[in-house]
Amino acid sequence: MTGVRVAGVGLTRFGHHPERTGRDLFAAAALRAFEDASVPRSDVDQLNYGNFMGAIAERQGHQAPLMAEAAGLGCPATRYEEACASAGVAVREAVRTIRSGEADVVVAGGMERMTNLGTDGATEALAIAADDLFEVNAGTTFPGAYALMARAYFDAYGGDRTDLAHIASKNHENALDNEYAQYQRRVSVEEALGSPPVATPLHLYDACPITDGASALVLVSESYAAAHDLDAPVAVTGTGQGTDNMALADREHLARTPAAADAAATAYGEAGIGPDDVDVAEVHDCFTIAEVLAIESLGFFEPGEGISAARDGETTADGDLPINLSGGLKAKGHPVGATGGSQIVELTRLLRGDHPNSDRVSDATVGVTHNAGGTVASAVVHVLEVAE
Amino acid sequence: MTGVRVAGVGLTRFGHHPERTGRDLFAAAALRAFEDASVPRSDVDQLNYGNFMGAIAERQGHQAPLMAEAAGLGCPATRYEEACASAGVAVREAVRTIRSGEADVVVAGGMERMTNLGTDGATEALAIAADDLFEVNAGTTFPGAYALMARAYFDAYGGDRTDLAHIASKNHENALDNEYAQYQRRVSVEEALGSPPVATPLHLYDACPITDGASALVLVSESYAAAHDLDAPVAVTGTGQGTDNMALADREHLARTPAAADAAATAYGEAGIGPDDVDVAEVHDCFTIAEVLAIESLGFFEPGEGISAARDGETTADGDLPINLSGGLKAKGHPVGATGGSQIVELTRLLRGDHPNSDRVSDATVGVTHNAGGTVASAVVHVLEVAE
Repeated sequence: MTGVRVAGVGLTRFGHHPERTGRDLFAAAALRAFEDASVPRSDVDQLNYGNFMGAIAERQGHQAPLMAEAAGLGCPATRYEEACASAGVAVREAVRTIRSGEADVVVAGGMERMTNLGTDGATEALAIAADDLFEVNAGTTFPGAYALMARAYFDAYGGDRTDLAHIASKNHENALDNEYAQYQRRVSVEEALGSPPVATPLHLYDACPITDGASALVLVSESYAAAHDLDAPVAVTGTGQGTDNMALADREHLARTPAAADAAATAYGEAGIGPDDVDVAEVHDCFTIAEVLAIESLGFFEPGEGISAARDGETTADGDLPINLSGGLKAKGHPVGATGGSQIVELTRLLRGDHPNSDRVSDATVGVTHNAGGTVASAVVHVLEVAE
Repeated sequence: MTGVRVAGVGLTRFGHHPERTGRDLFAAAALRAFEDASVPRSDVDQLNYGNFMGAIAERQGHQAPLMAEAAGLGCPATRYEEACASAGVAVREAVRTIRSGEADVVVAGGMERMTNLGTDGATEALAIAADDLFEVNAGTTFPGAYALMARAYFDAYGGDRTDLAHIASKNHENALDNEYAQYQRRVSVEEALGSPPVATPLHLYDACPITDGASALVLVSESYAAAHDLDAPVAVTGTGQGTDNMALADREHLARTPAAADAAATAYGEAGIGPDDVDVAEVHDCFTIAEVLAIESLGFFEPGEGISAARDGETTADGDLPINLSGGLKAKGHPVGATGGSQIVELTRLLRGDHPNSDRVSDATVGVTHNAGGTVASAVVHVLEVAE
């Protein structure tokens, strides 16, 4: 089984792009990834593309061949949809295809346009990631669903809104120098606490924004990287996926996300590491409480101990285990179909040393990404390591 | 590299199911597949699920974990979307995952609900498989797009509406005994010719219907089949995928579908066969002209010679190469996200000898499926063979 290397990474700036089509956004991210990779397009065997709400946002399904064309690729192209983990599964299947020897070069990533729908429209479109019959028809949208999870967490383990505000503040701090971030501005704990309520106990600054953007990765086999003398020091050494019951009412515990724990167990097992080996991580903080659930499911903290990690400085840029040095979904933004790819772009740059925050983790050799769909009915975890 | 066997197959009846949810339909197909396979659900490593328009038809995205739950599966679950080839790519990736050794048992298939949208609504939803900017906004829907392809074919090679009517009549004849078919009724050439025009030269009976339905397959590694003494005589020996430019205006030739030819070349190469070795095929006849383009792209007929194949009896049930013995999309129905899986269900049954039309191909050992997305911007081809 061959290893897999990240040969090139590309992003658009995340934010409002009302003047740009989806194909334009993805092509721009792919262009940057090819420039970074020094891999010719003619060597690409396959495109794995993630998108969630294109049928609603752009009346455009069947986006994979369209994106292949926009990116100048003539290879087979497949769309993956796993709600907000769409690009995560696209990358995962790319890694598995390269490992199997069926392909040497796969482009993986994703794109989402959301801001053209407005806040109400995007909220309604996002709600299709929940159970329409038993959740959405009852009035549930994602801020409400994560608010239920936050309440369950507080009830089970303690913690409060101030703990969550520290997470928001930390992630905004991390995004200050990230030129791809939707918000490059400081948010104090007090400002986060004072933001208007959305779904108690979650307030506006507990939520990630609505975002347009794209991500692209050029993934190659180790043998291809060696044969072409590529500068591709970061390897994908583990990939895992987990699934849980869709509706919150069918879960065993509202403050735990076993799909992510399952995904992590598989990914760690493949990489031959444990959570103590991880130096840095990008996790799916669509809401501040989601970051808490993520770092507990990944085994970085025991259940009930993740809530205070940001407040205590353990997960800040200067902490023992920096979480979301990119700014996370919270400050960098969350174009849902692109996010899973974007996390791997950011982590690759952090590990390669060419991220604005690389100096915060200059000794890091092992990183993890955690990408979740819905209320973590789906989760994908990847382990990246500096291989040379 | 291990081989892949079809251990079990399941379908719902195709047709109008206004009283059934998508999850109910898929669970029913999966139940039949498990009964057929004698494989316990706890052995399933992964669900690969195809769906196209769920975001519109049921306001339900993120369907993979929902369908896993409905089918009684706790494994990772991923949705594939490739327009009308969604289940085709879901099966293809299942085959590749089993071959790689990453999984021993994968459930693959798909589901679509369409009839609840009505004819206008379903036509509009289907149109998202075309290029929204350059085709749909100009008024193009799929009957119109395939009408352009038919006109281009007639201009380049000759042929006429009567040739197409023979294809419709043939496929309706084939469906007469298929209990899963939407239409089990005879349609004469004269009746097809006399049906109302939809988009000249295509009339109503040149088009497949709007359909609800689901398909499911239990695919296993050869080693798993042997270890569990499964009765699984049909092997998937080749899989291929191709991509073309999305919009018809960007194609080299409107009466050729190179994405399907590319997919066939890959699938034949893997199986070590050529088109002359094929005994029976299920092809993507969303419109009668599409069957012509398919059998030419698959290499069964030279360009320009496929148009007369049904009229001349070459592709009828008694012909040398029976095409769409299931009834095809035309008579069996076309729940788009399920179709690619359904084709493999039908072909498996034909080759195993338990299809109502198996006696028409009692000596058949090699079969092919051809599943297309949009105006064949995507195509997936599989080769199935009787292995024992």
